[in-house]
Amino acid sequence: MTADLATLRDALPDGALVTDRDVVAGYRQDWAKDPTAGWPLAVVRATCTADVQATLRWASEFLVPVVPRGAGSGLSGGATAVDGGLVLTTERMREIAVDPVSRVAVVQPGLLNAEVKRAVAEHGLFYPPDPSSFELCSIGGNAATNAGGLCCVKYGVTSDYVLGMQVVLADGTALRLGGPRLKDVAGLSLTKLFVGSEGLLGVITELTLRLVPAPPPASTLVASFASIDAAADAVLAITSRLRPSMLELMDRTSINAVEDYTKMGLDRTAEALLIARSDAPGATAAEEIAIIEQACRDHGVDEVFCTDDQDEGEAFAAARRAAFPALQQLGSLLLEDVGVALPRLPELVRGIEQIARKYTTTIAVVAHAGDGNTHPLVVFDPADADATSHAYEAFGAVMDLALDLGGTITGEHGVGRLKKDWLPAYLGEDVMALSRRIKDALDPAGILNPGAVL
Amino acid sequence: MTADLATLRDALPDGALVTDRDVVAGYRQDWAKDPTAGWPLAVVRATCTADVQATLRWASEFLVPVVPRGAGSGLSGGATAVDGGLVLTTERMREIAVDPVSRVAVVQPGLLNAEVKRAVAEHGLFYPPDPSSFELCSIGGNAATNAGGLCCVKYGVTSDYVLGMQVVLADGTALRLGGPRLKDVAGLSLTKLFVGSEGLLGVITELTLRLVPAPPPASTLVASFASIDAAADAVLAITSRLRPSMLELMDRTSINAVEDYTKMGLDRTAEALLIARSDAPGATAAEEIAIIEQACRDHGVDEVFCTDDQDEGEAFAAARRAAFPALQQLGSLLLEDVGVALPRLPELVRGIEQIARKYTTTIAVVAHAGDGNTHPLVVFDPADADATSHAYEAFGAVMDLALDLGGTITGEHGVGRLKKDWLPAYLGEDVMALSRRIKDALDPAGILNPGAVL
Repeated sequence: MTADLATLRDALPDGALVTDRDVVAGYRQDWAKDPTAGWPLAVVRATCTADVQATLRWASEFLVPVVPRGAGSGLSGGATAVDGGLVLTTERMREIAVDPVSRVAVVQPGLLNAEVKRAVAEHGLFYPPDPSSFELCSIGGNAATNAGGLCCVKYGVTSDYVLGMQVVLADGTALRLGGPRLKDVAGLSLTKLFVGSEGLLGVITELTLRLVPAPPPASTLVASFASIDAAADAVLAITSRLRPSMLELMDRTSINAVEDYTKMGLDRTAEALLIARSDAPGATAAEEIAIIEQACRDHGVDEVFCTDDQDEGEAFAAARRAAFPALQQLGSLLLEDVGVALPRLPELVRGIEQIARKYTTTIAVVAHAGDGNTHPLVVFDPADADATSHAYEAFGAVMDLALDLGGTITGEHGVGRLKKDWLPAYLGEDVMALSRRIKDALDPAGILNPGAVL
Repeated sequence: MTADLATLRDALPDGALVTDRDVVAGYRQDWAKDPTAGWPLAVVRATCTADVQATLRWASEFLVPVVPRGAGSGLSGGATAVDGGLVLTTERMREIAVDPVSRVAVVQPGLLNAEVKRAVAEHGLFYPPDPSSFELCSIGGNAATNAGGLCCVKYGVTSDYVLGMQVVLADGTALRLGGPRLKDVAGLSLTKLFVGSEGLLGVITELTLRLVPAPPPASTLVASFASIDAAADAVLAITSRLRPSMLELMDRTSINAVEDYTKMGLDRTAEALLIARSDAPGATAAEEIAIIEQACRDHGVDEVFCTDDQDEGEAFAAARRAAFPALQQLGSLLLEDVGVALPRLPELVRGIEQIARKYTTTIAVVAHAGDGNTHPLVVFDPADADATSHAYEAFGAVMDLALDLGGTITGEHGVGRLKKDWLPAYLGEDVMALSRRIKDALDPAGILNPGAVL
């Protein structure tokens, strides 16, 4: 049976099916810019759950691969188009309803993370997960990748905030899972299984999110260290005492790239910068900042600066978030996302330095230091074939190092296509086999995001 | 092939396989006291993961049903023995290692929840989930049922604290999932799938638990209301403003049963008692308690009492936890566990009153009011056949009511065997079918806890 796009077009609202090559081109890759991306038959811009169902029913009938896509800001190539397949984007599904009494929001997947935060803030509420790309990434993509962010050290990750969802299976069946209740143990934990499934098991068309009361304005501490080891030791000292609402680390390469980009006066000579925040209520924030300051002083900090000013504090957080665009000015980037148990953080940071030397490549390190999740960014000139191949070797060597340290190959970006080759080494064959059994049970024809993860 | 117990005995340490009928009798039922419980061939008291593997390999070979069991304190009959099967208890697996820097504990399933709390408290850390039975229930059972408790209104449920596990599948394969990292998105979210799977998918032999810094001592407020409607309205007013660390409700029947049992001076004339706590740091606790007090006054509270004294505060929390043993003095109990979105709580409470009248039975209500999870306790005389059948009818009617209100049939106890008949109505046929596909993928022979949940 040949896939007949006309029947799919008829099943969708006007304009939902796009085959214009120029438009389609914009949906072939996410931010990972996977050069192996294929050319899809078409892009479906779903407007509602029924559109997603119609698309998946059609795809199941004709065995056409479907690559689900949120805002396309993924960094592991999880939304990479497949030749002859469909790209199914939920970017047009953008409704939200906030219930301040139950403290939940029911949101459609196309809303950006920042839009969710703003909508719930109007009710004095807070949706914590905050990927650095929060102004550009979609809440549906956040759920599909179990996204993290800067505040996870205190508040946990996306999965901790998803109470329920509507999800469409490969065969077009729409399911409602969970709901606006903090406690619900009726049946298997299917909601959580779909969180982080990277488009392999179904397409999320609605989320019920848990919200928390808005915290008070945060206090901020910035500390520069002459040695990255000292900074890493300070991190351990801090996290063994308290749980800041942010605890980020930047190495010298990142500091200088960000300073070039923002001109905000960062200390270019520092080997590491820590940015810590406390949003504890009342006088506790000042107490926490004092403990953090003392931990920095105990580990040989060069300079430390504290502020309660919101704009100033936010500027430092923004500096950290700017590392990615700032480093892009230096060349192409391979974004790593390895994580280790906190006590192994100093070893990881030192090992990455050795890898950069070995492969004569630049690796800038920014890290969600408080939860052990680091983003080594391999910077290279894509016009230089040698440099490019060194960069990819270094990228792999960082994952190997994380595995040696008992860590994970991806803390919050997902496996996608870029990290697929390392997944068996991390999970082991038995867990891979179990994962495939679940994939096969939910998507027996394998039409959902083929080539990703497994 | 006939199951040959001798080969299983040989594969286990001395004393691990028990066939003595008097001992076996004690493992046939959990607290739900399911009268349909069967007589198992034997009880396996596993001492390590290898014992669990040996047991499941043997059971797979001979197609012998295996009922996994923690402390046997389940309230839905999830650990009910099957004729000719095995009961596999993890009660002897009791090791724990706490890592205060990573803020995780690696625990074996047989440790009691209270023992985990105590072990981590020695490091200034806190494991939040606190089922009322926390001094009697095991951490393995907590994970297998995704147990909740009193502090979930602020801290979330067991699933939010399980970062990793070792689990043995039906065929005896032991898997390691997740680990001591707050962020890990490498592969499907299998860890969370096993949490709350009620022994259907595998047997958990080790857990890696996320810990948080120990909160300061809590302040406590107790408020009595002449009308349960007023109390329910006060709950909504409180939860729309803040997130207390405990917000419990007791109705008049519960108050009087607990007062008979504890003689602590509760107001017997009140129609409802609210017990609220704040463990916010510094002066914030007093601010929160003041907000809670005002919300109670705004909704016609009769009497309100606040204390910072730890013993006094703990006595009120203990009074709430004593509802179950106190009500047991009045007869046999059917423990309900329905949950609704918070705005529906007043309707649920009023509807339960009507059900009690309709079936001329006593239903005491205690509720984790802050998260909408209520425990209507149907009290009956088991020697009276009419009363017993009325009680079971009322038990079902409460679940039907919860379903009508868009709620769940079980917030934290699990489906087990007692609530199985209501699960299809709650989940719907499509979600039931998906659940069965996952069950079949993981346990194709169906040896794990047959007759429970699905």
